[in-house]
Amino acid sequence: MKLFGYYRSSTSYRLRIALNLKQLDYDYVPVNLVTSEQKGEAYTARNPFGSVPLLEADGRERAQSMAQLEWLDEAYPERPLLPDGIEQRFTARELAYAIATETHAPNNLQVLKYLKEHFGASQDQIDTWYRHWLTRTFTPIEARLAQLGTGDYLFDQPGLFEVVLLPQVYNARRFALDLSATPHIARIEAACLALPEFQRAHPDNQPDNPEFSGPEKD
Amino acid sequence: MKLFGYYRSSTSYRLRIALNLKQLDYDYVPVNLVTSEQKGEAYTARNPFGSVPLLEADGRERAQSMAQLEWLDEAYPERPLLPDGIEQRFTARELAYAIATETHAPNNLQVLKYLKEHFGASQDQIDTWYRHWLTRTFTPIEARLAQLGTGDYLFDQPGLFEVVLLPQVYNARRFALDLSATPHIARIEAACLALPEFQRAHPDNQPDNPEFSGPEKD
Repeated sequence: MKLFGYYRSSTSYRLRIALNLKQLDYDYVPVNLVTSEQKGEAYTARNPFGSVPLLEADGRERAQSMAQLEWLDEAYPERPLLPDGIEQRFTARELAYAIATETHAPNNLQVLKYLKEHFGASQDQIDTWYRHWLTRTFTPIEARLAQLGTGDYLFDQPGLFEVVLLPQVYNARRFALDLSATPHIARIEAACLALPEFQRAHPDNQPDNPEFSGPEKD
Repeated sequence: MKLFGYYRSSTSYRLRIALNLKQLDYDYVPVNLVTSEQKGEAYTARNPFGSVPLLEADGRERAQSMAQLEWLDEAYPERPLLPDGIEQRFTARELAYAIATETHAPNNLQVLKYLKEHFGASQDQIDTWYRHWLTRTFTPIEARLAQLGTGDYLFDQPGLFEVVLLPQVYNARRFALDLSATPHIARIEAACLALPEFQRAHPDNQPDNPEFSGPEKD
């Protein structure tokens, strides 16, 4: 498999975690979003959406991270991202899709660019916007996690929810969002970041991160 | 089942279509987004996300439309929204999730309100924004549909893709987007609008639409 991605793209980060959790090998192909490489003809010929991540797998170029994750779990059912029971699957998806649609989407790089270019948004305004959509979803997710009595993970082991949550927690840290009001989220973050599958997927450890200094020594 | 929704909310419209296609009865409970009823305590006690649609079904209050649709298809497998084959399921989800995350999300009413309140966006600027995100996703979807040689529907009968597409085509018409460049989308729209399942789900035919004049006569 080939994963076309960008180190700081939270949707690319989702796929890296998921592939690691499922123990599926992949080659990582960096696509530079800052120079708009994803809008170039070479790339849009592969992916008309002009987005990352793109997963080249089983003879097909696959766009859209949530569709990729659902597909991975159906095509490679070992080490599932979604639990077995229909109700548990709903629980995971409700929280994962809340992040995918209500937080990630308005905070996407393309949206932020539009705000700067068409509304003259300052960096302060961007930061406020960014934290607004994070808080707006983290607060009800925290409420749901409290209702569910969640431990280190939503279920016994990390899956679809953690795959989608951790990249947003990374963004929350970058944008200096205070997570003290969301202790369940902070606890899940700590538990996941202790796992090698999440560590290897982290933006700090990607070759296209300008601050990347090579694989960590054992 | 009870569906809490708003006539013009495109995610509520998704659920109405899906429930009709699956021939599942439901009571429709209008929630007035214009007066922010969804932010009131009575409603957020049911749905901490403060969003529509909310599906009360099988003893549980379920938020997040994409999770609701996936759940409906697992809990009520008759008249499936997703096809059988893993590859076909990916095809449907890639296109459906593109709309859910890249078009619907930035054009959500909450985002438009934020643009007006914090960036002083004029109605012209809102309209341009709105059409921008529609076009940005409709164009690659049209490319995919052309690649797939799509007919009246993505597959033999309408399913997840059409459930998510039609509400956005309705929005496109409201915002005067020219659909002549996307003939596959326009053809799917015409085929779906001819079906009673889509007609009954249409915003024009909901009791909370101020212009609603009662059920159509036979």
